[in-house]
Parts: sequence; structure tokens; C-alpha cells
Amino acid sequence: MKAIILFGHGARDARWREPFDRLATLWRAQHADTPVELAFLEMMQPSLEEAVSTLASGGATQITIVPVFFGQGGHLRNDFPVLLNACREQFPQLTLSATPAVGDDLAVLQAIVDFGARAL
Amino acid sequence: MKAIILFGHGARDARWREPFDRLATLWRAQHADTPVELAFLEMMQPSLEEAVSTLASGGATQITIVPVFFGQGGHLRNDFPVLLNACREQFPQLTLSATPAVGDDLAVLQAIVDFGARAL
Repeated sequence: MKAIILFGHGARDARWREPFDRLATLWRAQHADTPVELAFLEMMQPSLEEAVSTLASGGATQITIVPVFFGQGGHLRNDFPVLLNACREQFPQLTLSATPAVGDDLAVLQAIVDFGARAL
Repeated sequence: MKAIILFGHGARDARWREPFDRLATLWRAQHADTPVELAFLEMMQPSLEEAVSTLASGGATQITIVPVFFGQGGHLRNDFPVLLNACREQFPQLTLSATPAVGDDLAVLQAIVDFGARAL
């Protein structure tokens, strides 16, 4: 079974995660057959490893991890691959793959441009 | 004249800003009559104040600042208002307004969901 993890940075302020919770809610409403979990790099729970474990317990065998970041700096180029490799070692029975950051996607960028244009 | 600032966090790795540069390029191609500048909270240039100054020098009188952040945590709730108020004091002839974070926008979130769905 396929599953998806939306992976964000995390922050001290609990309200920071509101758009991530909305993302998970949207996903569940539109892709009910594909379980989704949030995961965070730091300062919020669950960790990537915990999210992978939760999905595996639910029967997931192929998990796609989507970094919900704009840019690809040290967090995605250095920290994230280490976490991903640790998960692969811990869950050798799973297929774990990762997409580029969502900021790489032209449709995401266009939605941001459109948001700005509506605000003028 | 109206203008827009796309305001991001900033990062040590220069490659982090690539999607921000793409955003500015998209904006200029689609909204050529409305000047755009990027600005960053930390670790990248220009600052918000510098971007406002550049736009004012070019004739902007009403500047909308779009925080290109997902969540609204300490950076947007605490740091950003201080910077915005400092700009308002420094440029009293300008009208400076700010939108919510782009992560508040349903179309941006939907684009992220669609990106994830295409990656499965």
C-alpha cells in the first residue's frame, strides 16, 4: 500500500503547524485511499522516523516523502538525507522515496504569484 | 504606483533562494506593471528595509508585502511586525500593507496536495 508523508521544518509556536494540518485534512478528503502523516525536522512531533513507523504499522509498503519547504538549503541537502537513510536502514522492508521540495513545483509558485496578485 | 515584496526567511545556502528568484521572474512576466522585489528576514539580502527603499526610489507609493512562509510562528508574529513598523516609520510617505503567509491560502495548499499526488 502506498502512503505519503508531508515533511515540514517545525517551529516553537504550535500555531505554525496550522497549514500543515490543513494539508493533511485536504489530502484525506481527496485521497482517502492513500494514508498521510505529517512529520517535522525539529521542534514538532512526530519525527520522520515516527511517521514512517506509524504508516508501516498501518500496512504501508511504499512511502513518498514530500518536503514542504520552499528552498533546498542545508536542511534538505544535508539533514534530510541523513534522516531518510536512517529510516531506510530501520525499515528495510519499505520502499521510501522523496520528491524535491514543493518550492520546486511551478504550480505551487504560480499559486503564490496569484495570491500576491489578488492582494494588490 | 503599486509594488509588491515577496518576503522569505533566508538561508545560508545560496541555492535556497532559487524558488524565490523564480517567483520574481514569474511575477515580472505576468505583472510587468507592478514592480516586485524579494526581501529576506535573515542570512540573505536584501532586507525588508532595503527592498522598500528600492521600490520607493522607483516610484512605488503602495507596497504589499507577501510573507512567503508556510506557517505563522515567531518569525511572522513577532519579528516581522517589528520590521514592518520600522519601515513605516522610515518611509512615512508610503502605504505599506502585509498579507497573511502564503501557507494560509487554500490554492497554495491545494497545489502542494496536487504535487504530492502526482509523485505517488
